[in-house]
Amino acid sequence: RMNGKSELWDLFEKHFPVVVNELCTAPVDAGTEIQWSFDRIKDLLEYNVPQGKRTRGLTVVAAYKALAGENFNDESLNLALTMGWTVEILQASFLVADDLMDQSKTRRGQKCWYLKPTIGYQAVNDSMILESCVFTLLRNHCRGKAFYADLFDLFHKVILSTEMGQSLDMQASEQPTVDFSLFTEAKHAAIIKYKTAYYSFYLPVATAMYLVGIRDDECHTAACNILTKIGSLFQVQDDFLDCYGDPEVTGKIGTDIEDNKCSWLIIKAVQLASPEQTCALQENYAKKNPENVAVVKQIFNSLGLKSVFLKYEEDTYKSICDDVNNFQDSRIPHSVFLNLLKKIYKRKK
Amino acid sequence: RMNGKSELWDLFEKHFPVVVNELCTAPVDAGTEIQWSFDRIKDLLEYNVPQGKRTRGLTVVAAYKALAGENFNDESLNLALTMGWTVEILQASFLVADDLMDQSKTRRGQKCWYLKPTIGYQAVNDSMILESCVFTLLRNHCRGKAFYADLFDLFHKVILSTEMGQSLDMQASEQPTVDFSLFTEAKHAAIIKYKTAYYSFYLPVATAMYLVGIRDDECHTAACNILTKIGSLFQVQDDFLDCYGDPEVTGKIGTDIEDNKCSWLIIKAVQLASPEQTCALQENYAKKNPENVAVVKQIFNSLGLKSVFLKYEEDTYKSICDDVNNFQDSRIPHSVFLNLLKKIYKRKK
Repeated sequence: RMNGKSELWDLFEKHFPVVVNELCTAPVDAGTEIQWSFDRIKDLLEYNVPQGKRTRGLTVVAAYKALAGENFNDESLNLALTMGWTVEILQASFLVADDLMDQSKTRRGQKCWYLKPTIGYQAVNDSMILESCVFTLLRNHCRGKAFYADLFDLFHKVILSTEMGQSLDMQASEQPTVDFSLFTEAKHAAIIKYKTAYYSFYLPVATAMYLVGIRDDECHTAACNILTKIGSLFQVQDDFLDCYGDPEVTGKIGTDIEDNKCSWLIIKAVQLASPEQTCALQENYAKKNPENVAVVKQIFNSLGLKSVFLKYEEDTYKSICDDVNNFQDSRIPHSVFLNLLKKIYKRKK
Repeated sequence: RMNGKSELWDLFEKHFPVVVNELCTAPVDAGTEIQWSFDRIKDLLEYNVPQGKRTRGLTVVAAYKALAGENFNDESLNLALTMGWTVEILQASFLVADDLMDQSKTRRGQKCWYLKPTIGYQAVNDSMILESCVFTLLRNHCRGKAFYADLFDLFHKVILSTEMGQSLDMQASEQPTVDFSLFTEAKHAAIIKYKTAYYSFYLPVATAMYLVGIRDDECHTAACNILTKIGSLFQVQDDFLDCYGDPEVTGKIGTDIEDNKCSWLIIKAVQLASPEQTCALQENYAKKNPENVAVVKQIFNSLGLKSVFLKYEEDTYKSICDDVNNFQDSRIPHSVFLNLLKKIYKRKK
């Protein structure tokens, strides 16, 4: 890690217990019984929030710093760190729910929360508690500021978009039979934009924009267009890494093929496949048996999907760089976009 | 039904499609793919929201009318009806999640949402979508008003309280062995206050209070104290009806005994039981077998829990009436509390 990144990482790391303490301290008049629920929230946060790459949280801090420039002081830093963890908690809320819905086994190198012996279905309620923690932090730190309503409207719009993307993703994959005609590029583009791009890339930067008082729709729309493009590239990488990534590095074992996911790889494969290969994909996709998965992966390999992906990644990278060069609003330095883009370009995890 | 109630019921009924339409119309720039998710929200709302007793939603409208007095006009009525459905949608969000977590079979006389063949685990995401709809409605109708942030904070605080109550409830019941020492009156009081009373009774009235501009903490705290007492009585009735209610009337088949719930009945039973009866309760509580359930019910009957409940209900009713008589703030007519109390007193469903 470079020095600059390491310093920010350490500051962010140290701030997590501060946030946990704030969320898990019962009001003085709350009574002893409910204290148990607060203690439980502590476990929930500590197990599910800090183990990730923290890209989203660190983006809030970095973007706020870049946007505030000379006006960035110790108070701003504290607020930025708290808002960074707020976005990470939202992410944890989605992951706890997603892992239960997808019946995943591992997440970030550890057992999924719902698989812990004392948790099970309580994970549903826990996911909702994590979401509530997001709004408690917004209230505690931004109540009374001019942008308070903007910020919570932003979070709510982004949360609903994410949930709708999740819906669309599940609808595509949870069909009784394998039907590749449902897997269109347009549907895949909608799924990844809604399910991932808004909350992972627009939300952290938009939060920083509100914190420095950038509230006009024009600027938000222009930034959102670029950031969701970066976010969509990120999700295509995710689809790629699900099959081609190293589980030791990514911290999870991909199951997109088994789960009949409308993934970038299967869409490309169907586009490039011969009639025989399509037939074989149809017979082997969405089956739990490792032999079926191996056949699918073999076809992916023989179609050269790895190099198709690398070309797509490079072309998209260049196209986003062009968009950034054409971005005119001087309140947002180009580095806000370019640093994010560089961070994910050619990522292995 | 009395004429007054019937008229309000009909107005409320007619307003539901208006709310559904508002929530399920995609923005013009949304793209065709995501339209599918909007169509899905329509199904979700229509299956899960309007089938209930609508106590909470109608309370918003009745309370707003009572608090606004002569200032209540057509515009107020529309806002009141929308906010009423907002609370009903929140209720649906909790029920969709609870039924999955409790593995319930029926709700409001129909199959639980998660048990529908095309739904399953997607119910988790659907519950979160319903919660998001709540905030979309608040934003669409109250954005820009002086009380917007108050209302928004109210909903978030109440949602978190409900989730924490749900946590405490599940913790008490999901023990590996039956342990009645965990079922204390204090814990039961905390569970029902947090899990039910805040959102079912304080939330609808507090919403109406903000709509008419009553924003001070003193008045909210005083009203909250009375309303959570009414709400706690409501939940004790629920515990009673789970065992003694008529499934044809309540629309659900109770499973508190099977599910090891920290219910008002088991707490009373343990208080009144002989050592032999306690032993038998210990051996037969929390078992799925109908024979075990029958033994527990027999002990409940021999302890006379029905009349213990009826006395508790009457005493609590009187005590709340006293509290209302002592309530001093003239901005809230006593009828707001008393009509609610009368509505639930001796309820059968």
